[in-house]
Amino acid sequence: MKLWQKDGVAVSKEIERFTIGKDRELDLLLAKHDVRGTLAHIQMLESIDLLGSQELPILQAELRKIHAEIEAGNFEIEEGIEDVHSQVELLLSRRLGDLGKKIHSGRSRNDQVLLDLKLFIRDEIQELVELVVPLFHTLLQQSEKYKEVLLPGYTHYQVAMPSSFGLWFAAYAESLVDDLLVLQAAFKVANKNPLGSAAGYGSSFPLNRQMTTDLLGFDSLNYNVVYAQMGRGKTERLVAEALASIAGTLAKMAQDVCLYISQNFGFISFPTSLTTGSSIMPHKKNPDVFELIRAKCNKIMALPNEIMLITANLASGYHRDLQIIKESFLPVFAEIKDCVAITDYSLQQIKVKQNILDQEKYRYLFSVEVVNQMVLEGMTFRDAYKKIGEDIEAGQFEPSRDIQHQHEGSIGNLCNDKIETLMQSTLKGFSFDKIEAALAALLSD
Amino acid sequence: MKLWQKDGVAVSKEIERFTIGKDRELDLLLAKHDVRGTLAHIQMLESIDLLGSQELPILQAELRKIHAEIEAGNFEIEEGIEDVHSQVELLLSRRLGDLGKKIHSGRSRNDQVLLDLKLFIRDEIQELVELVVPLFHTLLQQSEKYKEVLLPGYTHYQVAMPSSFGLWFAAYAESLVDDLLVLQAAFKVANKNPLGSAAGYGSSFPLNRQMTTDLLGFDSLNYNVVYAQMGRGKTERLVAEALASIAGTLAKMAQDVCLYISQNFGFISFPTSLTTGSSIMPHKKNPDVFELIRAKCNKIMALPNEIMLITANLASGYHRDLQIIKESFLPVFAEIKDCVAITDYSLQQIKVKQNILDQEKYRYLFSVEVVNQMVLEGMTFRDAYKKIGEDIEAGQFEPSRDIQHQHEGSIGNLCNDKIETLMQSTLKGFSFDKIEAALAALLSD
Amino acid sequence: MKLWQKDGVAVSKEIERFTIGKDRELDLLLAKHDVRGTLAHIQMLESIDLLGSQELPILQAELRKIHAEIEAGNFEIEEGIEDVHSQVELLLSRRLGDLGKKIHSGRSRNDQVLLDLKLFIRDEIQELVELVVPLFHTLLQQSEKYKEVLLPGYTHYQVAMPSSFGLWFAAYAESLVDDLLVLQAAFKVANKNPLGSAAGYGSSFPLNRQMTTDLLGFDSLNYNVVYAQMGRGKTERLVAEALASIAGTLAKMAQDVCLYISQNFGFISFPTSLTTGSSIMPHKKNPDVFELIRAKCNKIMALPNEIMLITANLASGYHRDLQIIKESFLPVFAEIKDCVAITDYSLQQIKVKQNILDQEKYRYLFSVEVVNQMVLEGMTFRDAYKKIGEDIEAGQFEPSRDIQHQHEGSIGNLCNDKIETLMQSTLKGFSFDKIEAALAALLSD
Amino acid sequence: MKLWQKDGVAVSKEIERFTIGKDRELDLLLAKHDVRGTLAHIQMLESIDLLGSQELPILQAELRKIHAEIEAGNFEIEEGIEDVHSQVELLLSRRLGDLGKKIHSGRSRNDQVLLDLKLFIRDEIQELVELVVPLFHTLLQQSEKYKEVLLPGYTHYQVAMPSSFGLWFAAYAESLVDDLLVLQAAFKVANKNPLGSAAGYGSSFPLNRQMTTDLLGFDSLNYNVVYAQMGRGKTERLVAEALASIAGTLAKMAQDVCLYISQNFGFISFPTSLTTGSSIMPHKKNPDVFELIRAKCNKIMALPNEIMLITANLASGYHRDLQIIKESFLPVFAEIKDCVAITDYSLQQIKVKQNILDQEKYRYLFSVEVVNQMVLEGMTFRDAYKKIGEDIEAGQFEPSRDIQHQHEGSIGNLCNDKIETLMQSTLKGFSFDKIEAALAALLSD
Repeated sequence: MKLWQKDGVAVSKEIERFTIGKDRELDLLLAKHDVRGTLAHIQMLESIDLLGSQELPILQAELRKIHAEIEAGNFEIEEGIEDVHSQVELLLSRRLGDLGKKIHSGRSRNDQVLLDLKLFIRDEIQELVELVVPLFHTLLQQSEKYKEVLLPGYTHYQVAMPSSFGLWFAAYAESLVDDLLVLQAAFKVANKNPLGSAAGYGSSFPLNRQMTTDLLGFDSLNYNVVYAQMGRGKTERLVAEALASIAGTLAKMAQDVCLYISQNFGFISFPTSLTTGSSIMPHKKNPDVFELIRAKCNKIMALPNEIMLITANLASGYHRDLQIIKESFLPVFAEIKDCVAITDYSLQQIKVKQNILDQEKYRYLFSVEVVNQMVLEGMTFRDAYKKIGEDIEAGQFEPSRDIQHQHEGSIGNLCNDKIETLMQSTLKGFSFDKIEAALAALLSD
Repeated sequence: MKLWQKDGVAVSKEIERFTIGKDRELDLLLAKHDVRGTLAHIQMLESIDLLGSQELPILQAELRKIHAEIEAGNFEIEEGIEDVHSQVELLLSRRLGDLGKKIHSGRSRNDQVLLDLKLFIRDEIQELVELVVPLFHTLLQQSEKYKEVLLPGYTHYQVAMPSSFGLWFAAYAESLVDDLLVLQAAFKVANKNPLGSAAGYGSSFPLNRQMTTDLLGFDSLNYNVVYAQMGRGKTERLVAEALASIAGTLAKMAQDVCLYISQNFGFISFPTSLTTGSSIMPHKKNPDVFELIRAKCNKIMALPNEIMLITANLASGYHRDLQIIKESFLPVFAEIKDCVAITDYSLQQIKVKQNILDQEKYRYLFSVEVVNQMVLEGMTFRDAYKKIGEDIEAGQFEPSRDIQHQHEGSIGNLCNDKIETLMQSTLKGFSFDKIEAALAALLSD
Repeated sequence: MKLWQKDGVAVSKEIERFTIGKDRELDLLLAKHDVRGTLAHIQMLESIDLLGSQELPILQAELRKIHAEIEAGNFEIEEGIEDVHSQVELLLSRRLGDLGKKIHSGRSRNDQVLLDLKLFIRDEIQELVELVVPLFHTLLQQSEKYKEVLLPGYTHYQVAMPSSFGLWFAAYAESLVDDLLVLQAAFKVANKNPLGSAAGYGSSFPLNRQMTTDLLGFDSLNYNVVYAQMGRGKTERLVAEALASIAGTLAKMAQDVCLYISQNFGFISFPTSLTTGSSIMPHKKNPDVFELIRAKCNKIMALPNEIMLITANLASGYHRDLQIIKESFLPVFAEIKDCVAITDYSLQQIKVKQNILDQEKYRYLFSVEVVNQMVLEGMTFRDAYKKIGEDIEAGQFEPSRDIQHQHEGSIGNLCNDKIETLMQSTLKGFSFDKIEAALAALLSD
Repeated sequence: MKLWQKDGVAVSKEIERFTIGKDRELDLLLAKHDVRGTLAHIQMLESIDLLGSQELPILQAELRKIHAEIEAGNFEIEEGIEDVHSQVELLLSRRLGDLGKKIHSGRSRNDQVLLDLKLFIRDEIQELVELVVPLFHTLLQQSEKYKEVLLPGYTHYQVAMPSSFGLWFAAYAESLVDDLLVLQAAFKVANKNPLGSAAGYGSSFPLNRQMTTDLLGFDSLNYNVVYAQMGRGKTERLVAEALASIAGTLAKMAQDVCLYISQNFGFISFPTSLTTGSSIMPHKKNPDVFELIRAKCNKIMALPNEIMLITANLASGYHRDLQIIKESFLPVFAEIKDCVAITDYSLQQIKVKQNILDQEKYRYLFSVEVVNQMVLEGMTFRDAYKKIGEDIEAGQFEPSRDIQHQHEGSIGNLCNDKIETLMQSTLKGFSFDKIEAALAALLSD
C-alpha cells in the first residue's frame, strides 16, 4: 500500500517490483536518521500549532522507542511497504492511531529523504574521519619508526634518487590531510538543512525552518527551496568525490605495496596471515588484501562519474532517477571505511627490509648527490651534471653514499610534527560536537 | 578452508572477510557454468589419460546431478567456502572421495573463472537477445499501428518539422539493430575458449584445448595463454559497452516518454496501473517507470568506465583486482534484461494522442514543406527560405498541412520491412544453436 | 636540444615530435608562473649562498624583463626547445651567459612544473571567482526583479506546485555558493608550496623551503617531498572536480533554459541577437548558446574521470604520463570562465513571461495549497489529500490561486540576503590578497 | 554571415565567437568528405529533376576542383564563415553564381554533417586498420624471433610461472584481433547512409536515398530518419569505444614495457635514441615514449564517457550539444594512429635480455611444473601441491628447469599461424574495397 495510492486502482505487480527496486533494503540505512528528522519536524509542528502540545510528547516517546529499536537492529521495512518513511508512519499509526498520521504535515517525501540523506552523510563522514585519523597516526608512527631505513626513489619506474620509509609512510599521511580538507567541503555542503522545501517548492504552512535547523545541529539552511531539492544528486556527487580522494590515496599506496612486495622489489613483507596462496603455485604469497584495496578504491573513484551520468541534463525539480543514486551511494561508506580500517590493520604489521640500497642496481641513486656536492664546491649545475653523466657512461662513477638531505620534508627532516599540526587544524573544521549535542537533546526524554 | 591453505597457518578472520567479499553470493550466478566447464574439462582429461576411463562417467554423473541441483535452486556456497569452484569440488569429494579432487588437474582457478565468465556471458547475452527481439517487434508494431498519427518533430527542443508516431517508435527499433551489432562483436570476443591457459602461462600437461573448445561449442580458442588471461577485464568491458549501447537506446526513449507524458507536451499517456502518485500532490500521475528505466540505464552506461578504472595501468598477468569487477558486472545482466522487459511491457500499453498538430503552437512545423514546394516550383532554396522567413516575421504565414514525405524512411514510407530485414540478418550472426547443441550433449547422459 | 641531452646521441625525430607533443603550446600558459617561481627560487638560493649577492639582482632584473615580455604577449617557446623552463633558461643564458644557468640549482623540472601548475591554478581560480561573483549577483538581481512572476514547479517533469522566477534564479545563485565552497577546498590543496621536492625525493642542498613559501604567498608547504610529487595529478583532479561543480550548476540551468524557451513551455525568451537560426526552417530561434553551455559544461564534468584514468594504478613517483593531463587541464579554465561569462551576459538579457499560471494545464498546481488549507482548518493531511484527489478525479477541483508561502526560502520570503551573506562568508576563505601582495613584492624592483 | 541569418538582425559578436567555437578549425578535417557527400547528393538531385542535366556537370567539375584543393592543403574556412558546409557553398557561389546555391536543396546541415562524420569515420578507420596490421605483424615477428627466450610470468605482480617473449609479444597481437572485431562493429554502424534525413524528420522532396547510398559505397541506409539523426553521438560513442579497445591493448603493453625496462626487472631495453634523460639525474634513461603511449591511450579510454556525459538524457532530435563532441572526437584518430605507429616503430628496436630465469629470485617459477610432473606420475594434484609447498617452506625445493609446455597457445606451441588466420578472417569483414571503388567513381570525371 502506497501513501499516495487511491482506492480501487491497483499498480501492476511487475511495475511495483520494478519501481520499489532495492529501496526497502537500502532504506534501512536511513531509518534512524528518518526518525531523528521526524523528531525535529514534529517539535517544530507543535510550535506552529500544527500539533497539539499534548500530542507532541506522545509522538516523541513513540519515535524514541522506534529509534531504540532501530539502533538495536529490531527494525525492518515490511513486505509491501514502499520505503522507510511509510514504515515509520505505519508503526506510529498502529500504535497511536490517527495521531501517527500527523507527522507528515508540512513535509513531502522529497524533503524527508533529502534530510535523511544529509543526516546519514554527516554521520557516516564522522565515522569515516574517526577511522582515517588512526590510519594517519599509524602512517606517521611507521614513518618515525623506519625513518633511517632507505628505499630507492623512482621516477618513470626507474631507479632515481634515495628515498626512505620515513618519507614513504609520511607521504600518505600528508595525503590524507588534503583528502580531509576536501571531505570537509563536502561535509559543509551536506550540513545544511533542506527540511521545509517539501516537493522542492516550499509549503504554504508557516514552517519554522530555522528551528529544525537548530534542533538537528545543522550549520545553516539550504535557504532556497528549489536549490534544496537541486542538492539531491549534487550532494552525493560532491561527497563521492571526497571519498574518491581518500580512495585515491589508499589505492596509490596499495599499488606501491603490491610492487614493493614483489620479488623484483622485495622491500616489504607481511605475516602469512595477511597474504593468500595460489591453487596451483605452492610458493605464492599473494598480496590480495592490497590488490582488493586498490580495486575497491578504484571502484569508489568511478562513483562520481556514475552519479554524473544519472543526473546529467535533468532539468531542475525532482526526478525519480535520483533514487537510483542510493544503490551505489549508500553502501559506499561501508566500503571506504572497510578499506581504511584494513589498510590501517595491515600496515601495522608490515615488515620492512634493511639495507636495500646496498644492491648494485641502486648505485646510481647517488649521482645527483654527487652533482650537488660539486655545485656546492663551485661548479655550475649544468657542468657538474655533464661531468657525472660522462663518468657514468664510462663506468667510472663511484658514489659516496652519505645522505645529506636536511631541508623541510626531506629524508633527514621529515617534519612529521608539521603534518600532524596540519591534520589537527583540519579536524577543527568539522562540527561533530555541535551535531552530537543537538542529536542527544533530540533523542533524550 | 582454502584450496591453497597450508596446515597451521591461519589467515586472519578480518582479512578473510575482506578478501572473500561478495564472492560467495556472486559466484552463485556462475555455478551452473562452472559445472559445465568441468564436464568438458574432465572429458578432455580422460582423453589424455589424466583421468581413468572408468572414473570419467562417475564424475560426469555426479556433476550432472549437481548441475540439476543448481538449476533447481538447491545449491549454495557454504559458510567458510571461498568460491564456487571450491564448493563444487567439496561436494564431489564428499560424495566421491579422492576422485573428486581430480577435476582440478590441468587447471588453475584463473582459467576456470575465465571460462565460467565466458559461459555466463554467452548465456546471458542469449537471454538478453531473446528479450530485445520482442521489444523490437513491439516497437515496429506500434509504429505500424500509429503511422498516421503525427507528432511535432523537435530540434534544439524547438518545434521544427512534422514527425509521426510511426517514425518515433520505429527509430528505436532500428536503434536496437545497431545495438545488437555491437553486442554481437562482444559476443564473438567472449565466445572463445580460455580453458587451458591455467594461471595465464599454460600448463605442462598435454592438454587438448581444441577438444574443450568443441565440447563447449565455442567458435574458437583464445590461443595465446597470456592473452587468454588478458581477456579478463577486457571481455567484461567490451560486453558492458555493448549493454550500455542497448541501455543508451532505452534511456533516450525513456527521456522522450517522460517529456511526452508531461502536461506541457501531452502526446502520450499510460494506464493508471503504470504510473505512480505523489505523497503531497493528489493530482500527480508520475512516469516513475520510465524515470527508473532512464536512471538504471544511465547507471549501466557508467559500468564500462568503472571497469576501465579498475584495470587501468595493471601490467599483464592476473591481479586479484579483477575479482572486484564481478560485483557490478554479474548483476548488470539482470538489470538490463529487466529494463528491456519493462520497456516492452509498458510500451504495449501506451496511449497515443490524436490531432496533436492542430494546436496553434505547431503551425510553423510546416514552413519547410512550403519552402520545398516553392523550390519544386522553381525558386532557389535560399530565396524560398528568405521569403517564408519574412512571411513568418510578418505574421503572414499560412501553411498547407499536407505531408508529402515519401522517400525511404520518412513519414509516408517507413521502410519497417527493411528494418526487420536488418534485424533478421543481424540475428543470424549469433551462434546460439551451435552452443545449445554442444551444451545439451555435455549435460545429457 | 634538451637539458638532459648528452653529446653525440640524437633522439629520433619521430620520437622527439611524439614526446614533446603539445607541450610547447600548452606551456605558454605557464610561462609567467615559471618566471615568478624562479624569482622566488633564486632569492632563496642567494640566502643559502648558492648564488652570489651581486648575481641575484642581475638575474632578477632580467627575469622581470622576461615577465613583462610574457605579459605583453612577446614570448614564445622556440622551435626545438622542449618546454617553458628550457626557454626561460635559454633566454637568460643568451643575455647573461653562464650566470643564466645557475637558476636551476636545487630544482628539478619536476618540482618546477609542480610549482608552475600550482601558481597557474591559484591565478586561474582567482579569475574564475571574479567571474562567478558577478554571475551570482546577476542571478540574485533577476530573482528580486521577477520575484512576483510565478512559474509552474515540476517534479518528474510533471506540473506539480507553484514556483516563481524569484525562486528559480536564486536557486542557481545559492548553488554557486556551495560550488565555491568546494572550489575553495581545491584552492587550499593547491595553495601549498611543492618547491624543493626536486624530483620527488628532495635535495642535498640546504634549501629554505619556508622562504620560498613566504615569497610566493603560499598558505603552507607540501612538507613531505614524496607527497609534494604525489600532488601532481591529484591536485588537477581535485581542481577539475571543483570546476565540474560549477559546470554542473551552469549545465542544469542551461537545461532549464532550453526547455523553458521551447514552444511547449514558453516561459522565457531572449533577444534575437542571442539566438540562432536553422538552414532549412525559417521560423526557428534556437537556444544554441545554452545548448553549448550545457555541452561544454558536461564535457568539463568528464575531466576528473579522464585524469583518474590517466593516473590510476601508477605507483608513487613521477611518471611522464602526468604531462598528458595538461592537455585537457590547462585549457579547461578558459572554457569554464567563458561559460560563466556568457551565462552572465545572456541572463542579463532574459525576457520573462507574465501570467503563465493562468493556462488551464497548470490549474492542479494549487492542489497542495488547498490540501494544506484544509489541514490548517483541522483535517488530517491524509484525509485532506484523499478528498482533493477524489475531487480532481471527479473534475470538481476548483482551486484558490492565492500563494501563501512565507517560510524561509519560499516564494514569499526568498531570503536572498541570507544567500548573499553565505557567499560573502565563503569568499573570505580565499586568500587572494595575501597572494597578490607577495607576487607584487616579487615582481617589483 | 550565416546561412540562416536574416537581414538587419545581428548576432552579438561575443555570442558568435562562443557558438562557432572550434568549428572552423575542426571542420577542416571534414572538408573532403563534405565535397564527396555533395557530389553524391547533386547526382541524385539531377536524377529527380531538382537539378538540370546541364547544371550537374558544371557543379561536379567545380566540386572536384575544390576536392583537389583540399587534398593539396589549399583550403581554409575563411574568417566569419561558420563551417565547412558554408565555405564550400561560398566557393561555389563565387565561381558559379546562383547555381552554387542549388546544392543545398533537399538537405539540412544536420544530415550533411551526419554524412560528413560517417565518411570521415570510415576513412579514418581504414587508415587506422592499415597501421594496426603492420603492428600486429611486428608483434608476431618478434614473438617468433624471441620464442626461445624465457621470461618470468607474474600473477599478483608475484613471480609465478615461466613465460616467454614468444608468448608476450603474441599475446598483444591476438589482443589486436579482438580489438579489430570490435572496431568492425563500429565501422558497420558507421557505414550506413544518413543522407536524406534532413533535420531528422526527412523531406518532402522525392529524394532517392538508395541512390546516394550506392554512390557513396555505403552498406545500407539508416532507414528511419529519426534514427538517422539519433545516430549522432551514438556513432561517435561506439567508434570511441572501439578505439578505446585498441588503446587499452597499447596501454597495457606500454605498462609492461615501463616495468620491464626498470632496473628492478631489466628484461628489455631500447636504443638511446628511444629514451630520454633527466635534468637532474645524469644516469637516467627513461621510457618516456611508452609512458606517453600509456597516458595518451588512457586518455582515449576516457572519451566514450565524455561523449556519454554530453548526450545523456537528451531527448530525440538534434541538439547543438552534439557539435561539442567533435572537439575531442575528430582529433582522436590522429592520436590513436600516432600511438599505434610509434608502438610499432619502437617495438621493432626492442632489445631482449637472455637468461633472465637464471636469477635466484625466479627459482620458484618451476614449482607448478614439478607438481604437474608428480601428477603425471600418479599423485593427486592436491597432494603433490601440498608436498611441494612443504618443500618450499623447508628450503628443500630444487626444480628441474625444463619447460614442457606443448598445448595450443603455450610456450612450446605458440599457434601464431592460427592468430594470423584469425586476423585475416577479421580483416575480410571490412568493406574498404567497395568504398574505394565508389569514391573513385564519384571523384573521376
